[in-house]
Amino acid sequence: MRVVCAPDSFKESMDAGVAAAVMAAAVRRVVPEAECVEIPMADGGEGTTRALVAARGGRLVPVAVRDALGRAAVGEIGVAGGRDGEGEHASGAHASGERGGSRLGVLEVASAVGIGMIAREERDPLAATSVGVADLVRAVLDEGAARLVVGLGGSATNDGGSGLLVGLGAVLRDAAGAVVPPVPARLGEVADVDLGGLDPRLAAVTIELACDVTNPLLGPTGASAVFGPQKGASPSDVALLDGALATFVAALEAATGRSVRDVPGAGAAGGLGAAFLALGARRRRGVDVVIDAVGLDDAVAGADLVLTGEGSIDEQTLAGKTPAGVAEVAARHGVPVVAFAGRVAPGADVLLEHGFTAVVPIVHEVGPLSAVLADGEANLARAVATAVRLLVSPALRRG
Amino acid sequence: MRVVCAPDSFKESMDAGVAAAVMAAAVRRVVPEAECVEIPMADGGEGTTRALVAARGGRLVPVAVRDALGRAAVGEIGVAGGRDGEGEHASGAHASGERGGSRLGVLEVASAVGIGMIAREERDPLAATSVGVADLVRAVLDEGAARLVVGLGGSATNDGGSGLLVGLGAVLRDAAGAVVPPVPARLGEVADVDLGGLDPRLAAVTIELACDVTNPLLGPTGASAVFGPQKGASPSDVALLDGALATFVAALEAATGRSVRDVPGAGAAGGLGAAFLALGARRRRGVDVVIDAVGLDDAVAGADLVLTGEGSIDEQTLAGKTPAGVAEVAARHGVPVVAFAGRVAPGADVLLEHGFTAVVPIVHEVGPLSAVLADGEANLARAVATAVRLLVSPALRRG
Repeated sequence: MRVVCAPDSFKESMDAGVAAAVMAAAVRRVVPEAECVEIPMADGGEGTTRALVAARGGRLVPVAVRDALGRAAVGEIGVAGGRDGEGEHASGAHASGERGGSRLGVLEVASAVGIGMIAREERDPLAATSVGVADLVRAVLDEGAARLVVGLGGSATNDGGSGLLVGLGAVLRDAAGAVVPPVPARLGEVADVDLGGLDPRLAAVTIELACDVTNPLLGPTGASAVFGPQKGASPSDVALLDGALATFVAALEAATGRSVRDVPGAGAAGGLGAAFLALGARRRRGVDVVIDAVGLDDAVAGADLVLTGEGSIDEQTLAGKTPAGVAEVAARHGVPVVAFAGRVAPGADVLLEHGFTAVVPIVHEVGPLSAVLADGEANLARAVATAVRLLVSPALRRG
Repeated sequence: MRVVCAPDSFKESMDAGVAAAVMAAAVRRVVPEAECVEIPMADGGEGTTRALVAARGGRLVPVAVRDALGRAAVGEIGVAGGRDGEGEHASGAHASGERGGSRLGVLEVASAVGIGMIAREERDPLAATSVGVADLVRAVLDEGAARLVVGLGGSATNDGGSGLLVGLGAVLRDAAGAVVPPVPARLGEVADVDLGGLDPRLAAVTIELACDVTNPLLGPTGASAVFGPQKGASPSDVALLDGALATFVAALEAATGRSVRDVPGAGAAGGLGAAFLALGARRRRGVDVVIDAVGLDDAVAGADLVLTGEGSIDEQTLAGKTPAGVAEVAARHGVPVVAFAGRVAPGADVLLEHGFTAVVPIVHEVGPLSAVLADGEANLARAVATAVRLLVSPALRRG
């Protein structure tokens, strides 16, 4: 019997690697001969780096970065597989390692310029810059990665990715040829984006944006209008930012010959989407990027059961969350999938119409949320064991 | 597919009849063609009357009673089946009615002399009397019951059942022939128990005590020493009560020719056990009395699955709680049993070694206990549906 354990993290309770290990141990407790494959998952959001590293037996690398306000901070990247073998350490049971032989790098822009790193009263989308993302990208290049997965989302910036590009060697200039700093308040002055100084290693790297946001860069559904306010932009700021990004992107498109402003996802992460797209990146639904990166299809093919889960499951889960993506893979291979969650909202029943055999809550006793979260591993273990007992029970099998 | 739904009540959330109906509906939601038999259960404790009435399609009858302090109160009895057909109304889906043709009466002593009916500061085991239990017994006799199930437990009394006997027509006298009232403080005066005036209808009634308590009437493990303190007895009260009961029971045994003081359960409900035993009652484990009364064996025979449950399941559940009794019946017939509970304590895993296929928690979302209790029916329905989905799933069935 082969069981694939492919959960996301259970937020505030356990990360995806721990959840996968707990699931596998619980399955084996009921069916000792079961072959369990642990594949920690993510959907491109928080935890994507760690999940990919855990699933691929790679490692995390701390990186000195600048945060969105330019202050020194420590971000992290993940690397797995590839040339020097360092990435082959198994941190989980699933350490099949790198099949293609080329090194994978993973980063989340929020690890450098995350909005959670900036106190609410300090948030300033007119000043915030994404230059720290370049610190992460260069660290990935330093590791020799041939493929880069970027988790977009959660940034404090609205600079169209101008900081990223400058950090990687681009130079912004105004009509008079003077250098313009990559700050949103100044982007309206940009007449030219000089990419001649770009880090040459970028040319050899395939970049995938793990991103569910499909907004364009500009206009009423663009980065400034939709995401600016939550980063601290007033209505007049939004207008200023949108105009500045329009000027900047025109110069960027002229420099690259690529039209990016209306590509779905250009407006993600304050326009970092547009900058990465200008560098040749491809945007995909986050969970699909992860599914590919961890080789989920290969693992699920021929399995008898897939277990997935996340801290909370509700009707929004179908909108690209990990359990939904995992269920799609399971459906491709005709393998049943059962999901587990700390919270199973009433709307979660809709998942039953989308290939889930069952959505199982893991809480065994009501108590303060902090205590319930602390019991996460024990609760998940018990719930998985219970579900497996029911699945292998001979009851109700006469038909 | 035949599924027996035999839960206890989920305390503070839903009674056993509602729980059984919720379970049945949930099963049918997943397997529309399933034949579900609803058998509300109890273990002889609180809710036994209502469960038996619901399971047998009987009715509840309010009864004017005296509480343990002699104050007017309203108790209730249950009657089902028998001569006049009134008891045949189906209140649940399982209304197969009375097979034997004789009427069953049910009462809980706590419905008249319950400790919960007496404010803490008013509790007085030297004065409290069980005469109100006689009010319930006479009401059962008035209904023409041929068989009486008595739920012992939760009484505020410590009178050795002297009040019950006097209420049914007995007369207590001292050595001089003067009448002694059935009050514990006076029982030390009793030299004779005159049973000549006992309600003659009692002779034709089979009485079953649903009672897990096996304490004798007297001594260090007797009613006064073990249960007296929780009814308000001080250490000196305990000595006085124990001595008074010893005097009383000697006279009672002399009058009946039955030795009851050391019969297991004589010390239950402040010695009401001894008085009922003197009347010829038989004590059995509560859940077994209920199992018989509702005809659970007949229902389970030939079923594919048994569902049971209770508000909380822990290692104590095996000590005669409803799920354990139901599991024993299921085991007799080789039918799998799955239990559901609002709280599944860590110790509940021991149930898996005693015939349970699984013990499934029903909480889907952590919140204030009051809200969780209010969601009981919805949570139980979802948990049952999920379990049935897992049971009927083709996953993990290759072997």
